[in-house]
Amino acid sequence: MKDNRVNGYRAAGLATGIKTNGEKDLGIIITETPATVAGVFTTNQIQAAPVLLDKKRVHSGRCRAIIVNSGVANCCTGEKGMNDAIVTTGKVADLLNVDASQVLVASTGVIGPRLPMDTIRKAIPGLVDAAHPGGFNDFAQAIMTTDTVPKLAFRKGKVGGRTFRILGVAKGAGMIHPNMATMLAFICTDLAIASEDLHAILKSGVDDTFNCMSIDGDTSTNDTVLLLANGCSQATIETPYDFNDVKWAVNDVMASLARQLVKDGEGATKLVTLNVIGANTEEAAKAIASTVGQSSLVKTAIFGEDANWGRLVAAVGRAGVPIRPDHLRIYFDDALVFINGQGIDGPDGTRADAVLRQDEYVITIDLGMGKKSAKLLTCDLSVNYVNINADYRT
Amino acid sequence: MKDNRVNGYRAAGLATGIKTNGEKDLGIIITETPATVAGVFTTNQIQAAPVLLDKKRVHSGRCRAIIVNSGVANCCTGEKGMNDAIVTTGKVADLLNVDASQVLVASTGVIGPRLPMDTIRKAIPGLVDAAHPGGFNDFAQAIMTTDTVPKLAFRKGKVGGRTFRILGVAKGAGMIHPNMATMLAFICTDLAIASEDLHAILKSGVDDTFNCMSIDGDTSTNDTVLLLANGCSQATIETPYDFNDVKWAVNDVMASLARQLVKDGEGATKLVTLNVIGANTEEAAKAIASTVGQSSLVKTAIFGEDANWGRLVAAVGRAGVPIRPDHLRIYFDDALVFINGQGIDGPDGTRADAVLRQDEYVITIDLGMGKKSAKLLTCDLSVNYVNINADYRT
Repeated sequence: MKDNRVNGYRAAGLATGIKTNGEKDLGIIITETPATVAGVFTTNQIQAAPVLLDKKRVHSGRCRAIIVNSGVANCCTGEKGMNDAIVTTGKVADLLNVDASQVLVASTGVIGPRLPMDTIRKAIPGLVDAAHPGGFNDFAQAIMTTDTVPKLAFRKGKVGGRTFRILGVAKGAGMIHPNMATMLAFICTDLAIASEDLHAILKSGVDDTFNCMSIDGDTSTNDTVLLLANGCSQATIETPYDFNDVKWAVNDVMASLARQLVKDGEGATKLVTLNVIGANTEEAAKAIASTVGQSSLVKTAIFGEDANWGRLVAAVGRAGVPIRPDHLRIYFDDALVFINGQGIDGPDGTRADAVLRQDEYVITIDLGMGKKSAKLLTCDLSVNYVNINADYRT
Repeated sequence: MKDNRVNGYRAAGLATGIKTNGEKDLGIIITETPATVAGVFTTNQIQAAPVLLDKKRVHSGRCRAIIVNSGVANCCTGEKGMNDAIVTTGKVADLLNVDASQVLVASTGVIGPRLPMDTIRKAIPGLVDAAHPGGFNDFAQAIMTTDTVPKLAFRKGKVGGRTFRILGVAKGAGMIHPNMATMLAFICTDLAIASEDLHAILKSGVDDTFNCMSIDGDTSTNDTVLLLANGCSQATIETPYDFNDVKWAVNDVMASLARQLVKDGEGATKLVTLNVIGANTEEAAKAIASTVGQSSLVKTAIFGEDANWGRLVAAVGRAGVPIRPDHLRIYFDDALVFINGQGIDGPDGTRADAVLRQDEYVITIDLGMGKKSAKLLTCDLSVNYVNINADYRT
C-alpha cells in the first residue's frame, strides 16, 4: 500500500459517529496546490444536495479539497440539506484558508434523514489535521456503505520524460448501473492537465468503465465521479500522444475500480463480462447487454451455476432490438452452447458447466448480424443481495 | 369448486411422466361444438414452437381443443420441436375426429430440451377419455410449473335474458411482466361471440390486466392467452351494451387471474398495486410504474417491510420521464410519506410502517403534473425468489 500516494495530496478517514456502528464515516482529500477538476454526476432527476452543490462548483474548474461522508445521503432534505452541505464545505474552507467554492462534497447512505451537523462540525478540524499523504486507505474505508472491501487503484505513467501518478478511490456495492449509481469515485493525479482536457479524459473514461457495469439496475441520487489534477509532478500533456497516454492511464485506473465495484456488488459471488458482438449498431448491442445484465432470471441462474442459456436467449429476444434467432450464438467463455436456434449438448455442454463454476467468466452473445459490439460488467443475484437490501435501513 | 363448469366444455389434467416428480403435467380442454377463438402471444422474438403453430392456427378462428404440457417449453427446439407440436395436436385431432388446424397447443417449462414424445403420444388417449365438465381443477394443476397454487376464476353474466358463464385458468409465477410472461391463460365462455368481437374483447382485457403486472421483469418465449366462445349457452351479443357487459365480465375474470398470478409470484410475500397518477401522458405514467415495479431495491424494501420512500423516489427519478421533484407525492395506502421534495415524519410515518406490514397495499405515486395515470400489480423480491430460480433447472 506504500504506493498509494500522489504528489501534493493528503487524505484521511475517521469514525465520527455519523454511522452508529463505530465504523469510519467521514473522509477528506486535500491538495496542496489548487487542482483542476472535472466531474460527472448522476442522471437521476432526484439529486442529493452535495450533487447539486458540486455541479455548480466544478464549473469554476478549481478544487482544493473534497469532504465525503457515508451513512447519510443528504438527499431529499430540502433547503436545510443544501445549507448543511454549504456549512460543511465552508468549515473545511475556513481551516484550509481557501475559497469555499473550491471545496467539494459528497455523501452516500440513506435517503431522507438530515446530516448530524453537530457531529460533523466538531469532527472536521481533527479530520483536516489527520490528513497525510498515506491516508487514502483510511479515506477509502470512510466512504464505504454496504461495500465489504475498500476500493483503490494506483498506477504510474510517463509523459515528456517525467513520471506522474494516478490514484483512484471508489465505493459502490448496490445500485450500480450504467449511467452511474450509488457510486462515488475520486481520482487524483499529479499531472498538470488543462480543464478542457480533463473533462474529455473523465468523460471518455466514465463511458468506457463505470457506465459499462450493472449490479442491480438501480441508479442513485448521489453518484459522483471527480477527477483532480494538481500538477505537482511537473509532468504536463504536451502532445496528442501524451493526451492519449494519459487518457489510457486514467481509463486503466477507472477500469480497475469498476471491476472492484462489480466484484463487490451486494451479495455478488460472480463477476461476469457480457460481450455482445455482431450487432448492427452499438445502441443495439448496448440494449441487449443491458437487458441481459438486468434480468433477474439470468442473474439467479449465474448464482446457481446453471448453464441455462434459455434464460439468456429469452432476455436477448425481449430487448426491443431486432434479432435473427437462427443467427444467434452464445458462448460461456469458449464453450459454444447455442447455435442455429438450438442448444448444443456434447463436450461444449460439459465445458460450459465447468465455466459456470468459475468466479469470473465471459458470456459472449454473437448476434451474427453486423460488426458493432458492447461490453457490460455484471454480477449474479444472490440470496445475500436480498438479505442485505431487505435489512439495510432498519 | 362446483361452479367451475361452462356449458359444452370438458377438461382433464394427468401426471404422465413429462415432469420427473410425479406431478400433473398434461392437460386438455375440449369443446363439444366448435368455438370461435382469439389469441394473444408473447412479444419476445424468441418464440416456442407451440406459439408459432398457434399463431397460424388462430387465424382460422375455430377451435375444438387445447392441449397443454408443463415441464418442457418446447422452445429453441428447431424443426423437430415444431414437428413435435404438430404430432401432438394431430393425435388429439384424430381422437376427436376434427381437423388438426382446430387443435391448439401450449407448453411451459425449461427452454431447450425436446418434448418426451413417446410419453405424450401414449398419454393422449387416456387424457381425452378423462376429460369431463368438472375437470378444470385438474387442468389448472397440470399446467403449473413453479406455481404453488392452481389459478381459476369463474363468473356468470346475463345478456338478452340468457345466462352465460366464463371460466379462466392461468399459470405464471416467474417471468411475469407487462407484455406477457411465462404465462398461460385459457378463458372459456359459453357465449356465442363473433370472431372480431372476440379479438377486441381479448385484446382490451389483456391490456388492462395481464399487461399491467410485473413479477421480475422477464418476458418468456411461450406466453399464450386464448379466449374460446362456443355458444352453448344460447346467449349472444346483440347490442353494444351487451358487448360492453361481456367485455367487463371477461375483464373481471382476467383481473382475478392476474391478481392470483402476482400473489403467487415466485417467492412473493406481498401484493402491491403501484398507482401512478398526475402524469402528463399515460406513457409517462406507465414508464414510471414499470421502472418502480422492476426496481430490485424497491422490491427488497417491500419484502423487508421497510417504508424506504428514498428508493421509490430514486426509481421515479431514473425512469426517463421528466418529473418535478417538488411536485411529487408518495403514499403508502393513505399515509403520505413524501411531499415538497422531502420525507415527512410524524403520525403518517408511523402509519406507513403499519401499512408495509400488510400482505396487500397500494403505493400511490402522484407526479402532480397532469391527469393521466397507470396501474401496475407487483410483488416483492424475496430470498425465496432467488432460491427458486437458482435451483429451478437442476
